Amino acid sequence: MSTLDAVLNRIDQDIDQSVERLFALLRIASVSTDPAFKQQCRDAAEHVAADLRSIGFEADVRPTEGHPVVVGKSNGSSANGVPGPHVLFYGHYDVQPVDPLNLWKTPPFEPRIETLPDGRKIIVARGACDDKGQAMTFIEACRAFKAVTGKLPLPITTMIEGEEECGSKNLFSFVRDNADEFKLDLALVCDTAMWDQKTPAVTTSLRGLVYEDVKITCADRDLHSGVFGGAAQNPIRLLAKILGAMWDDDGRVTIPGFYDGVKDLPADIKADLKALDLTPEKFLGPIGLKTSAGEKDRMLIEQVTTRPTAEINGIIGGYTGEGAKTVIPGEASAKVSFRLVGDQDPQKIRDNFRAFVRERLPADCKVEFGNFGLAAALQLSFDNPALNKARTVLGEEWGKKAVAVGAGGSIPIVADFKNVLGMDSLLVGFALDDDRVHSPNEKFDLTCFHKGIRSWARILHALAE
Amino acid sequence: MSTLDAVLNRIDQDIDQSVERLFALLRIASVSTDPAFKQQCRDAAEHVAADLRSIGFEADVRPTEGHPVVVGKSNGSSANGVPGPHVLFYGHYDVQPVDPLNLWKTPPFEPRIETLPDGRKIIVARGACDDKGQAMTFIEACRAFKAVTGKLPLPITTMIEGEEECGSKNLFSFVRDNADEFKLDLALVCDTAMWDQKTPAVTTSLRGLVYEDVKITCADRDLHSGVFGGAAQNPIRLLAKILGAMWDDDGRVTIPGFYDGVKDLPADIKADLKALDLTPEKFLGPIGLKTSAGEKDRMLIEQVTTRPTAEINGIIGGYTGEGAKTVIPGEASAKVSFRLVGDQDPQKIRDNFRAFVRERLPADCKVEFGNFGLAAALQLSFDNPALNKARTVLGEEWGKKAVAVGAGGSIPIVADFKNVLGMDSLLVGFALDDDRVHSPNEKFDLTCFHKGIRSWARILHALAE
Repeated sequence: MSTLDAVLNRIDQDIDQSVERLFALLRIASVSTDPAFKQQCRDAAEHVAADLRSIGFEADVRPTEGHPVVVGKSNGSSANGVPGPHVLFYGHYDVQPVDPLNLWKTPPFEPRIETLPDGRKIIVARGACDDKGQAMTFIEACRAFKAVTGKLPLPITTMIEGEEECGSKNLFSFVRDNADEFKLDLALVCDTAMWDQKTPAVTTSLRGLVYEDVKITCADRDLHSGVFGGAAQNPIRLLAKILGAMWDDDGRVTIPGFYDGVKDLPADIKADLKALDLTPEKFLGPIGLKTSAGEKDRMLIEQVTTRPTAEINGIIGGYTGEGAKTVIPGEASAKVSFRLVGDQDPQKIRDNFRAFVRERLPADCKVEFGNFGLAAALQLSFDNPALNKARTVLGEEWGKKAVAVGAGGSIPIVADFKNVLGMDSLLVGFALDDDRVHSPNEKFDLTCFHKGIRSWARILHALAE
Repeated sequence: MSTLDAVLNRIDQDIDQSVERLFALLRIASVSTDPAFKQQCRDAAEHVAADLRSIGFEADVRPTEGHPVVVGKSNGSSANGVPGPHVLFYGHYDVQPVDPLNLWKTPPFEPRIETLPDGRKIIVARGACDDKGQAMTFIEACRAFKAVTGKLPLPITTMIEGEEECGSKNLFSFVRDNADEFKLDLALVCDTAMWDQKTPAVTTSLRGLVYEDVKITCADRDLHSGVFGGAAQNPIRLLAKILGAMWDDDGRVTIPGFYDGVKDLPADIKADLKALDLTPEKFLGPIGLKTSAGEKDRMLIEQVTTRPTAEINGIIGGYTGEGAKTVIPGEASAKVSFRLVGDQDPQKIRDNFRAFVRERLPADCKVEFGNFGLAAALQLSFDNPALNKARTVLGEEWGKKAVAVGAGGSIPIVADFKNVLGMDSLLVGFALDDDRVHSPNEKFDLTCFHKGIRSWARILHALAE
């Protein structure tokens, strides 16, 4: 029997104990955003550190201005003695608040196994998936290697933080201040989703974000539309006209230079995505929509993951109460954001957007801008060797080729791994769309947990070679 | 001394008490559009009724589905015993909302006199001009007649309503249901403006109004823009795109059929208007603007009085708080109004607007409309004898001939006086362009109030002869 097979066997034999160890972590109410749970966050960090020590990691609970970071370190080498790449594993031990508590069928910090009508077994608890369950798939894979071979297949540093659910705000300086320590060969992250129950996925891109506040001021006061209507500039009309012009009839953003740095997908990746057959019915049906509003010449899956977008996230101006008020307001404002991909330059997108608005503004109206976000997109090269190794072995585990997909949202620290540490991240996760992450009755499929552990064992083994 | 001179003297002697009585009415926060002020509207109605009784009117607070109408009745006859025409005086005791409250220098319902740098004394309060101050010019003129002659110079019925600022919606049926009572010889209305500080005006045309609320619903919940951005319809984007398309680059409204029934002015009237030389500097300068936003091929005075307009009076959707939220809202809404002139059909304009929106709406988005106003425009014949009497005596009071002008705003019920009761309306008002009507720090010049009272005394005297 090969080393890997022995490790996988060990994982299967040990699965009940793996679940017990996850349950022990799930029982700690480590809600990071609420100061009332400060001690529980500390307890969770200590628990994770002790668990890492139990499998031979040197582990510390390292302080920050907020909740601590658990840093674990272990040497490792492959069967033939090659040390292999040194990887940084990132996960988080903090969880979302549980409200509304009354919607939970059982208490959120009393984990249990439930069998669904379709036979699926699920682990139910706050954090079952996000991210205690996912982080533990990696730790349990390490444990199996230790048990079978007495060592890890490659050197591993773990960084399990406690503030991901409130913006990772102290982790940025922690990483910067300890750049030498964490600037390793590759980051592994387990906080993303599978394509579906049967299809594993590696998340190869995260969209960036530019978030702008725009306020247009015309007259220096609110006006009676009966008196000034037809002559006075109306800032709502200007906002509507200007922001409404941001898209053409084909759903493309019209801001000059907006698509600079946006590359087309390689043909094979595009074909893979096409084969996933993400239909508007499947994706938009659950939210009450049928038709995509995106670029007409793009697949839906491209529109939501690998294509940039512009959105108006909020707008307000004039009278918005009950009934009628015949006012022309002095000012109106909107929040506008852009999701970026590829090499789009956030600074340039912001400047071009501002120029787009300014150019359309009549001479005696003013515009003020505020910025609440300026992050570039993240893209893992499609020929990254680690990516291709991971896709291959995930395919072996799940019986179906792993897809390389983009995620519409962002994991803030991953951008810093690239920009501050110059290190790529391999994002592999086992969440499913129905996991109710951030909602009551959060769950993680037992199969996802079990095969997730096996998947990491395969990935570590492959990376070590 | 003639009767008229005695009445004018009495007005001069009593002016401080007249101001006190106006202040008492201004202290009542009778905001009609907000249900929270229901009792204050009732209080204002009772206050006006009591005041009318104090000068010999038989006065009732008459219920409607909304705020009540104050109806007062008094006989009257000229010095030589001729009863003269029976006039209906219309005004309103309700006022606009006060928001944004933080822009008021002093509380809106604590009236005060302020002296401007140029020496003008002004009455500052919500409703100081619109319409409590204006309505009180008429009541105070009646009071002076009563005090000096013991009677009014002609029979007067007063109708002081409480829903003008929210479209007079219950007054229409009230007038219709009591047509016999209110179908009199002539309506007198005090809710309009002077041409300027020195030039009195009779308003011979009023723009009509269509006021619509439009709500667009897309997804059945608020969405994360990172997940759904690029695919989900965004109702703010739709609102911006659709409403922004209501005007072409020359300021013309693009809704099909919008200009049906709009006639060009006769050449002589157009020449009179041109002679008034209303420049953008003069009209828009005081509100901080320099350039007109209206139809490029029209004089400014046409744009604001005799041409129809479209305005967005309010808009709201998505996140409007501090900072950023990456949301795509499920719904967004706006308030849109149209000022009508000539023979534009309000029903048709409303239908065409709704069709304009519906035609541009993607298949799986919904739109709901609400209507808060539907009034045709109004035009008084230039050879009306009451008009000419009024222009003459206004010239005597102000030392300058009264001009006959069109008003940009609408007084919805005046259309019904014509269409339902077959009665012309003589619109004489003393507001000035800088009165900040509907805005913070609304004011009414003390001179306008004082000479306004004297003007009505002269008009009543002239109509009685």
